[in-house]
Amino acid sequence: MIQAGIIGGAGYTAGELIRLLLHHPAAEINFVYSTSNAGNAISDIHQDLLGETEQEFTGEINPEVDVLFLCLGHGNSKSFLEKHRFSAKTKIIDLSNDFRLNPDADFNDMHFVYGLPELNKEEIENAQYIANPGCFATAIQLALLPLAKHGLLKQDIHINAVTGATGAGTSLSPTSHFPWRDNNFSYYKPFTHQHLGEIGQSIAQLQHSFDKEILFMPYRGNFSRGIFATAYTEFDESADKAKEIYGDFYKNAAFTTVSDKELHLKQVVNTNKCLIHLHKHKNKLLITSIIDNLTKGASGQAIHNMNLIFGLEETLGLGLKASYF
Amino acid sequence: MIQAGIIGGAGYTAGELIRLLLHHPAAEINFVYSTSNAGNAISDIHQDLLGETEQEFTGEINPEVDVLFLCLGHGNSKSFLEKHRFSAKTKIIDLSNDFRLNPDADFNDMHFVYGLPELNKEEIENAQYIANPGCFATAIQLALLPLAKHGLLKQDIHINAVTGATGAGTSLSPTSHFPWRDNNFSYYKPFTHQHLGEIGQSIAQLQHSFDKEILFMPYRGNFSRGIFATAYTEFDESADKAKEIYGDFYKNAAFTTVSDKELHLKQVVNTNKCLIHLHKHKNKLLITSIIDNLTKGASGQAIHNMNLIFGLEETLGLGLKASYF
Amino acid sequence: MIQAGIIGGAGYTAGELIRLLLHHPAAEINFVYSTSNAGNAISDIHQDLLGETEQEFTGEINPEVDVLFLCLGHGNSKSFLEKHRFSAKTKIIDLSNDFRLNPDADFNDMHFVYGLPELNKEEIENAQYIANPGCFATAIQLALLPLAKHGLLKQDIHINAVTGATGAGTSLSPTSHFPWRDNNFSYYKPFTHQHLGEIGQSIAQLQHSFDKEILFMPYRGNFSRGIFATAYTEFDESADKAKEIYGDFYKNAAFTTVSDKELHLKQVVNTNKCLIHLHKHKNKLLITSIIDNLTKGASGQAIHNMNLIFGLEETLGLGLKASYF
Amino acid sequence: MIQAGIIGGAGYTAGELIRLLLHHPAAEINFVYSTSNAGNAISDIHQDLLGETEQEFTGEINPEVDVLFLCLGHGNSKSFLEKHRFSAKTKIIDLSNDFRLNPDADFNDMHFVYGLPELNKEEIENAQYIANPGCFATAIQLALLPLAKHGLLKQDIHINAVTGATGAGTSLSPTSHFPWRDNNFSYYKPFTHQHLGEIGQSIAQLQHSFDKEILFMPYRGNFSRGIFATAYTEFDESADKAKEIYGDFYKNAAFTTVSDKELHLKQVVNTNKCLIHLHKHKNKLLITSIIDNLTKGASGQAIHNMNLIFGLEETLGLGLKASYF
Repeated sequence: MIQAGIIGGAGYTAGELIRLLLHHPAAEINFVYSTSNAGNAISDIHQDLLGETEQEFTGEINPEVDVLFLCLGHGNSKSFLEKHRFSAKTKIIDLSNDFRLNPDADFNDMHFVYGLPELNKEEIENAQYIANPGCFATAIQLALLPLAKHGLLKQDIHINAVTGATGAGTSLSPTSHFPWRDNNFSYYKPFTHQHLGEIGQSIAQLQHSFDKEILFMPYRGNFSRGIFATAYTEFDESADKAKEIYGDFYKNAAFTTVSDKELHLKQVVNTNKCLIHLHKHKNKLLITSIIDNLTKGASGQAIHNMNLIFGLEETLGLGLKASYF
Repeated sequence: MIQAGIIGGAGYTAGELIRLLLHHPAAEINFVYSTSNAGNAISDIHQDLLGETEQEFTGEINPEVDVLFLCLGHGNSKSFLEKHRFSAKTKIIDLSNDFRLNPDADFNDMHFVYGLPELNKEEIENAQYIANPGCFATAIQLALLPLAKHGLLKQDIHINAVTGATGAGTSLSPTSHFPWRDNNFSYYKPFTHQHLGEIGQSIAQLQHSFDKEILFMPYRGNFSRGIFATAYTEFDESADKAKEIYGDFYKNAAFTTVSDKELHLKQVVNTNKCLIHLHKHKNKLLITSIIDNLTKGASGQAIHNMNLIFGLEETLGLGLKASYF
Repeated sequence: MIQAGIIGGAGYTAGELIRLLLHHPAAEINFVYSTSNAGNAISDIHQDLLGETEQEFTGEINPEVDVLFLCLGHGNSKSFLEKHRFSAKTKIIDLSNDFRLNPDADFNDMHFVYGLPELNKEEIENAQYIANPGCFATAIQLALLPLAKHGLLKQDIHINAVTGATGAGTSLSPTSHFPWRDNNFSYYKPFTHQHLGEIGQSIAQLQHSFDKEILFMPYRGNFSRGIFATAYTEFDESADKAKEIYGDFYKNAAFTTVSDKELHLKQVVNTNKCLIHLHKHKNKLLITSIIDNLTKGASGQAIHNMNLIFGLEETLGLGLKASYF
Repeated sequence: MIQAGIIGGAGYTAGELIRLLLHHPAAEINFVYSTSNAGNAISDIHQDLLGETEQEFTGEINPEVDVLFLCLGHGNSKSFLEKHRFSAKTKIIDLSNDFRLNPDADFNDMHFVYGLPELNKEEIENAQYIANPGCFATAIQLALLPLAKHGLLKQDIHINAVTGATGAGTSLSPTSHFPWRDNNFSYYKPFTHQHLGEIGQSIAQLQHSFDKEILFMPYRGNFSRGIFATAYTEFDESADKAKEIYGDFYKNAAFTTVSDKELHLKQVVNTNKCLIHLHKHKNKLLITSIIDNLTKGASGQAIHNMNLIFGLEETLGLGLKASYF
């Protein structure tokens, strides 16, 4: 069994990793590190796990684990890795944005591969260190990369994406206070969300020539899990051509499927799937892309990356039942 | 007291009209016509009204009322007015889309004025027949008309707007079934929503030269009331200039206010207000516009129009307490 | 115009008082005291009020106001009144639980009357100081007092009541964090909620002999506003007799109505109403009682009390449109 | 692989069965029978399954399947089994209430065992025909049966249980219409819910002497999945004794666990678990019991029964990740 360690175990993404690893047939949790919760039962924090595990958070780190997941706040992974050393064989999958951009990818003697399997599968399979993509970035890249591969991103791209409240993490905040968020709607960081960096970098990887704008409006929805993203841009080819391009791009994808029907978010909530829908209107192609922000957009993708690194079947431990309702 | 009649009394917009008229200091409900509910108490259907009115639905129409509100399904107002005649003095306010577009505005001997007070206040004050605007159309026009007035809509306009489930009416439908809609998100009629006709017509009224595209994505939110709309387009002037233009356009508006702060939907829910926010990003102006679809987007605006027609103070009966939470 | 002052202006109940007073025809806001927000616009905190008031929070108190509303945390009203003196004519309505119980009702030279109009209307009309009832306590007393009046509470009373998240106030807390509360359900303080004191005291006022148990389970609902309470106890009389008793008790009540039909919470949300329903099952009488916790259960009732004290019509400024959806 | 057939494949419980069987390591779906959807893709109805199965609904039945799940409306299982014959080896698990009560348990040559594994594990292991328990009935029995086993149900039992909207099925109805249900609360069938039959029968099985009343209030919550049930009754023993009794009763239970901490519904949503919490207040024992109505309360329990019948490990295919948020 692959021995897995988790750093920063009290947050949402760590919780999801624990949920997934508890049922993973080829991996097991070696330790869950949380300084603030050391000695407490994991199920005291992740309370759905009562009856499934009696493991406790620990304040000690085992540097010999096979795989280490970093679930720290953005900016904290680097400082953590400066303070702690792991064995030469330990694979590290970082869920923050610390190593996602090329200028950040090399740190000490480690090289982080951007862990979007649909884009970098081979590199991931051969990687030791993974920078796990952001949630919005995952949904949006999966909407755009097939076009980029064919050099078909020719004009500005207009993106709207709405995220659930778990996207803002476990910290209490006024915009996550129930009386505020319930039945409410709003946006934040219009046109300047930090995931634009990752998105632009991956597009450039496939279509170096792209020099237009990406106009991305991120919205706060009054639901807990999931991202519903739409993107449109000029597309002079036919709708059938679009379907061919996307179908081809995702024909071997383990979790991404093109739907002939219009989508609604709960088709993917609590799964590791991404569903894509294509709609042609005049000279515009509208691409819809939906994921669960905590699974496909974070911890599920991290397990997917683990599976790839260790040469396991891609879907191992990720055959998740949608909650759907 | 102004005697008011309501046709089609069992739906959401009729319910809101009844709620508003029950507390209106200058008008009272003469009759509420509903063939399917004739003889039943109004509070049997609009159940919050228990204790406020003992009036019943009627199957008989009083053609002598001062004002008549038509709350029929789209397409049914025309046929209703063909079958029923009202006194020469009766003002008619139609909440459907039957008479909103110029080619439909003249019907028999009636001329319907498009009842958006921020655009057509004087015409409304002198009108006898009003075509009350659509809900999305209200929010979006209030976002765009100040620019149109100054001929500043120069490029394509990108609009996203999300509506609550009441926007789909009282008819039971799969996409309004709670287990489907709860914590879900989706869109419908991408780029082709029927309100584009009204919107384009009003823009043309102020800026005849506009010949670019309006790309409107309507979304279904998992809340009950309200519309949160964002629009952006190229704008070469400064942010301050934008604030000046909007401030000037709305300086005498009874219900529309420009906010210096970012908006969230519940600021307007259950009120007749529209709040507007402006944000400049590079060469784009982002305009946010929020309303309650059933009040400002329908019945509240209808009462506003009634007030204007009868020379009453605009805000009479519309000083509504927001539910806010 | 009655000059009103509000102490502790940033919380939910203060916000609701401001909303109500802004539209009250016989009162106006003289000041809203908030040390933490002094100098900020009221609409910066109560953001739905943008466009309705430009008033600011103040750090100064006008001791000459006609009526003072205390919206402080439980336990803080006493210390506030020790530090601040008001004119001899100033009426004080306290929304905390500091003065609700008889042993607390006399403080310095002030005597606080328990401000449940359905119980103590005459005393309120003649009072200068009011202890405004708790939200759960309001719903539950209105369910039980008609029986108490007739000495018909003969056995244990079983009460379930579920409250919205605004009941827990504006302070951020884990059980009001959206990802936790959304689509969730739980209880707190089983059988020991602090409102039992008020409830028992009022029952004893009408039926001194009552010596059975009140078993009250308070639940947290995943909605924002409202309390849905059910109570049942042995009742040997007929259903018709129950209806007669309740109808008689509430025949002059301005806001409480007995419904022949089963109730649902949104019938009263954002109104000052209480609806009561009676159902006889074998030898049990099931009484349902629904209110909005912030209006009838707090600020609306406070305005009701103000109206009574000043000899105004009871419903003045309280003819609120339900949001209903 | 066990060959499974599903009758009535378009409803919620069938959808959940399909989701579970698709990932079950020892069973596979042989056919899903739906007359109304024959020929359509299963993922057209259960739209989260896109990308996971290309199977279609069929109008033909394979009478040789190893196990048959009946997901028909209450009352329709009997008539279905009268019209259709299955092989002598076919196990049948019925999810309706047609065979749950002893007088209904024998039908033609079939004897239906009541499929609550915590109560009847051995009988289930030896059964061919299973009557799968109701959702409320499951939660409530698991709260009460440990007391019944020790003859400790001595006085009336007071039960409140709130269910999500999926409990009312896929049929569109006014109380499942989103604008009604959203942020609302109500009850139905006070004291007379049909599951009282099952509950009473199981209690009698363990404590024949019980002759007091079960007062059960079923509530409609504004969430989609889950049942939160509380029950209290007189209990003269200590809290520790209660914990011992429940701990002992569930010590070998695969899915039911006693929690030391207070519970909230989302701990079990989208899992097959039941969590129980005990709280002693004076002479009352308060038992909280939470389940997901569609998994532990229906389809998950059906798979559990299938596992038992076929001698598989109880938890096979039921290690479900909670959605939790």
